[in-house]
Amino acid sequence: MTDHARARIAIVGATGYTGSELVRILTAHPRVEIAAITSRGRAGERFSAIHPAFAGICDQTLVTVDDLPDGLDAILLALPHGASMDFVATQGPDGPPIIDLSGDFRLPDADQYATWYGQEHRARERLAGAVFGLPELFRDRITGARLVANPGCYPTASILALAPLLRRGLVEPTGLVIDAKSGVTGAGATAKATTHFPSLFGDFRAYGLRGHRHTPEIEAALAEVAGHEVQALFTPHLLPVDRGILATCYARPAATRATGLDDATIAAAYAEDHADEPFLRWTAGPPSIKAVRGSNYCDVHATWDDRTGLVIALAAIDNLVKGAAGQAVQNLNLVCGWPETTGLTQGPLNP
Amino acid sequence: MTDHARARIAIVGATGYTGSELVRILTAHPRVEIAAITSRGRAGERFSAIHPAFAGICDQTLVTVDDLPDGLDAILLALPHGASMDFVATQGPDGPPIIDLSGDFRLPDADQYATWYGQEHRARERLAGAVFGLPELFRDRITGARLVANPGCYPTASILALAPLLRRGLVEPTGLVIDAKSGVTGAGATAKATTHFPSLFGDFRAYGLRGHRHTPEIEAALAEVAGHEVQALFTPHLLPVDRGILATCYARPAATRATGLDDATIAAAYAEDHADEPFLRWTAGPPSIKAVRGSNYCDVHATWDDRTGLVIALAAIDNLVKGAAGQAVQNLNLVCGWPETTGLTQGPLNP
Amino acid sequence: MTDHARARIAIVGATGYTGSELVRILTAHPRVEIAAITSRGRAGERFSAIHPAFAGICDQTLVTVDDLPDGLDAILLALPHGASMDFVATQGPDGPPIIDLSGDFRLPDADQYATWYGQEHRARERLAGAVFGLPELFRDRITGARLVANPGCYPTASILALAPLLRRGLVEPTGLVIDAKSGVTGAGATAKATTHFPSLFGDFRAYGLRGHRHTPEIEAALAEVAGHEVQALFTPHLLPVDRGILATCYARPAATRATGLDDATIAAAYAEDHADEPFLRWTAGPPSIKAVRGSNYCDVHATWDDRTGLVIALAAIDNLVKGAAGQAVQNLNLVCGWPETTGLTQGPLNP
Amino acid sequence: MTDHARARIAIVGATGYTGSELVRILTAHPRVEIAAITSRGRAGERFSAIHPAFAGICDQTLVTVDDLPDGLDAILLALPHGASMDFVATQGPDGPPIIDLSGDFRLPDADQYATWYGQEHRARERLAGAVFGLPELFRDRITGARLVANPGCYPTASILALAPLLRRGLVEPTGLVIDAKSGVTGAGATAKATTHFPSLFGDFRAYGLRGHRHTPEIEAALAEVAGHEVQALFTPHLLPVDRGILATCYARPAATRATGLDDATIAAAYAEDHADEPFLRWTAGPPSIKAVRGSNYCDVHATWDDRTGLVIALAAIDNLVKGAAGQAVQNLNLVCGWPETTGLTQGPLNP
Repeated sequence: MTDHARARIAIVGATGYTGSELVRILTAHPRVEIAAITSRGRAGERFSAIHPAFAGICDQTLVTVDDLPDGLDAILLALPHGASMDFVATQGPDGPPIIDLSGDFRLPDADQYATWYGQEHRARERLAGAVFGLPELFRDRITGARLVANPGCYPTASILALAPLLRRGLVEPTGLVIDAKSGVTGAGATAKATTHFPSLFGDFRAYGLRGHRHTPEIEAALAEVAGHEVQALFTPHLLPVDRGILATCYARPAATRATGLDDATIAAAYAEDHADEPFLRWTAGPPSIKAVRGSNYCDVHATWDDRTGLVIALAAIDNLVKGAAGQAVQNLNLVCGWPETTGLTQGPLNP
Repeated sequence: MTDHARARIAIVGATGYTGSELVRILTAHPRVEIAAITSRGRAGERFSAIHPAFAGICDQTLVTVDDLPDGLDAILLALPHGASMDFVATQGPDGPPIIDLSGDFRLPDADQYATWYGQEHRARERLAGAVFGLPELFRDRITGARLVANPGCYPTASILALAPLLRRGLVEPTGLVIDAKSGVTGAGATAKATTHFPSLFGDFRAYGLRGHRHTPEIEAALAEVAGHEVQALFTPHLLPVDRGILATCYARPAATRATGLDDATIAAAYAEDHADEPFLRWTAGPPSIKAVRGSNYCDVHATWDDRTGLVIALAAIDNLVKGAAGQAVQNLNLVCGWPETTGLTQGPLNP
Repeated sequence: MTDHARARIAIVGATGYTGSELVRILTAHPRVEIAAITSRGRAGERFSAIHPAFAGICDQTLVTVDDLPDGLDAILLALPHGASMDFVATQGPDGPPIIDLSGDFRLPDADQYATWYGQEHRARERLAGAVFGLPELFRDRITGARLVANPGCYPTASILALAPLLRRGLVEPTGLVIDAKSGVTGAGATAKATTHFPSLFGDFRAYGLRGHRHTPEIEAALAEVAGHEVQALFTPHLLPVDRGILATCYARPAATRATGLDDATIAAAYAEDHADEPFLRWTAGPPSIKAVRGSNYCDVHATWDDRTGLVIALAAIDNLVKGAAGQAVQNLNLVCGWPETTGLTQGPLNP
Repeated sequence: MTDHARARIAIVGATGYTGSELVRILTAHPRVEIAAITSRGRAGERFSAIHPAFAGICDQTLVTVDDLPDGLDAILLALPHGASMDFVATQGPDGPPIIDLSGDFRLPDADQYATWYGQEHRARERLAGAVFGLPELFRDRITGARLVANPGCYPTASILALAPLLRRGLVEPTGLVIDAKSGVTGAGATAKATTHFPSLFGDFRAYGLRGHRHTPEIEAALAEVAGHEVQALFTPHLLPVDRGILATCYARPAATRATGLDDATIAAAYAEDHADEPFLRWTAGPPSIKAVRGSNYCDVHATWDDRTGLVIALAAIDNLVKGAAGQAVQNLNLVCGWPETTGLTQGPLNP
């Protein structure tokens, strides 16, 4: 399929949804060989024994992290937070580049980490060098990074919805409201009472009011874009679907804009930021989570309500793809110097 | 079952979901006899031929409005807007009390109606006497009313979420954000491309940005409660479930409150308003649409985010019950002088 | 609401779905007072703390079985199998009548129980006196019974689909195929990996091939109706919905019928058996699980395929109502000598 | 991506689900260039205007069939039945090979077509040369065919479930029962009352009892495999999901097998037939439709129930992929002489 020698990649953590989704994408990636997949609890079993949908696609035997092969070109961490930083702490800075899908290296500050994650950071020495892996905002830093903190699913949608407005000072950086809705895979692969099928079928509700740890991640990234502090109220809801996130964001026009905003100004801002972005699509009306299902797209729309003087900005992603594994592969492509869309051109599964 | 003679009630409009839900509730109502059910297009057929789930429960033959019997004690209108006011225009003011489930008499002003509904009001002479039928706010007016405008589904949830805050001036009456999500029965019983099962299964999206006609209804009712104008940005979303509405509302504390708000103040406000209300429940955490499915409850929760200084208020209802037919029966009970909960004590179908 | 003194009923087992559904139905039952609800693990808590949808409807404090009050008129057991027979073993035969919703007393034979349930029967002395509580077939026995074994959900649908055919010898009693599909509440209220929302959303599959313990229950009841042994292959499937069972059954015409069957003969058989049955409805076409949701109806249809010479018989129920709690209340009504439909007239929640 | 010149393919019919799915697959196919996509009603519009999920993936302008370019290497017909044969009738036998996804050329006999499809066959001269495009059974005929009748979705699953048993005479060819369940995309992209979201959400039912036109297609293909007539009762059901078919099939062991069957014999039969088949997977237990979602796999399992003496055989496919567009591309690969899996290696979207 390709003349290039394939890069040897390891996936650390195989039992969760992000590990499974990495395998789905990487088995079809033309530049990658999955050199190893690890699992602490299920080493020795085949990947397809845990994820039967992958029979015939990935029947590799899982190993422990102790048996990771030498000469890896990159490592993708699909571990719970906490476990990720412990793994990173064992790796020297000269090891292969690491792309971490957990939250452990997303916040710039160890104290802030302790506040929101309820534990001390145990790999502080690597924190300063970690790069927040949202390519549409920080592409230059990612190329050549040794440690990429892959953004959270909610932050990816929220930041991409709001960045063009904040970058240009079109809206006030405080009083932002992010009303976000996620499919249930966002809650992880472990069965819980709250994710029991009969409880969620036909249901919808908010959860984690005020205290969700994606809040500081959103604010930090947007602050970098805006050039000053940003403050957002982030409210997550659980959608009775498997995949997909929709973030509906509300902002006030910048106080300096006496006459508020207008749709042409808004559309021009997004058009400028979306130019040359392979995974951002501006939609004619409100975006739909089904239109991005299984793909790495982020669909975005925004409009100005002159009656109330508020801006509405919406973004839709597949939480497991652009919100996790797809974005990790996008980062991998950047780190490895490959075209950014390599292995990510699969269209949405719609309907 | 009862010593009382039953009141003779007509349901005008049988083919839609609100008509069907009225039948579901009224066939179990101990004070009511369904004297007639009408349909323009399907008169002569049995109700259960259109709604087979009601076989053996309601096999009445539908009639046209011309064949409505004399001596009715009340009429419930389950017609599209436009058709409702035309029906009302044919009825003298001395006819039986009417409870209208459409939007035709919800807005206080005929010009406002023309703006949001895209047609002139054709029963202006009845508009002034129409009462907005949200019992928790306007109970006194409903008792004895001749024409009750049953509130919309979104307005019911939105108003009940925010009223205790606005009534006491705890929050600013402008800049309100209502991010609302509704099950698909809210879009009516007629099949459309946008409600084709494969399009919506696994999907979620916003619609009707900025222009939804429930906006002025919400603002008008809250303005009455607040004592001054209210301005809200209302954004509806389509949930891939059959029934249920969740309204997530955001408000800024009143500028007069130098130190913002606190949860004790908020909880006390709702507790006071909920006292003696049979259908309002304060929930310990975020309310769930499944916890009210099939019932006339409205579950409410609110909290203060001191970090951003915003209040979040949430309300969940079944859009066909408290958002339509159940509330209509609650109004019927008031109009007829019966205990307000008569026929409405059925618990939620959960799970 | 009623002149009668209410009967004092206890529900033993509160945390599962059948316990919750019993409460939903009995709180609206005009002849019943719920005198106690028990829970082994959560005694001391309110019922509505476990099932928040019931706040304001049933806030009773749970007790242990040791604190069951005296003078009960009946006991409903919503316990797992095994626990049920242990409870029954502690009760004298002169205690209040018991309606057991578990499988412990459904099979006529203790050895058969041991085979299919994997444990010895520990209340053998009560087994002979237990009555299989399917009122449509065994009404006379239930009236006055001391111990009623409430049928399983799958058996209720399967037996009611096939009984009219077997009772008249219209079909062969062997080679029967029952292809049954159940909503996920049938799997119980405990979260498991197999009932994790993302696993089941959009999925459908068979399970328990060949070995499901509802098989002997179906065969035993149908054998009584047929007057000789019956043999059926029962294959359950898991539907991605919360409630509902559809059983699609296939049978060969009796060998004695040289010319096979015809739809008139079939329809007449069901019409005769359905006459005077308040909860059986013959449907014009294939029945739908949504048309019975939340109700105690069993909708049935059958037809003859002359091309292949096979009969198809279908039945739809709500597994938690006619398949569990509703049927238990139907049995309670019979045991107590009340009209059989008391408290069970609630219509389906449709849509 | 490839050194080969790409083949120029036209897709005739763009607005339905099979057309959309062909585009999804072919835009990622390394040997294909989509030279034209046609639509009768929407020529002049972009493909992505009709299917917004494909924005940026396929923005081609649709043309009418009159504007099909010359020099096509193959034509894929995604038209309703009737329209397909009319198109074929206009094409000379020396035109590019045609793969027809409708039912028009699946039945070997024009009279049988008239019986089941309710219209005369209008391209009888092409019927004899049409090849039934199920590669696992008829691969040799497909290579080099000029007109391939792509199998129906239900037949694909049903035939692949039963073929290994019938090929070897392990089961009786009559009295077969196929209880099949399909997601709603199988009913097409046009909104109908029966596919209105609120009607199907939480529902499940059979439909088309006895008369489904996939029956003769199943019987004809299995008859070829068995070497004699086959008779099956086929009962379709509508699953409340978007994609996926599960066929649960029941068969009696061949009368010649005095001692019935056993699982080892059954497993060996499937293992032999599955050897070298890239899209058939034998599963350890009952197959799941989610495990094949978005992929071209057909997952199969079968077992023997010694108690009743019946065999159960199950097969799961994605009705739009292996049941339609994926299989069409598999046929295209064969017709064009490419490796059969080209462009079809995408794994399932799970969860």
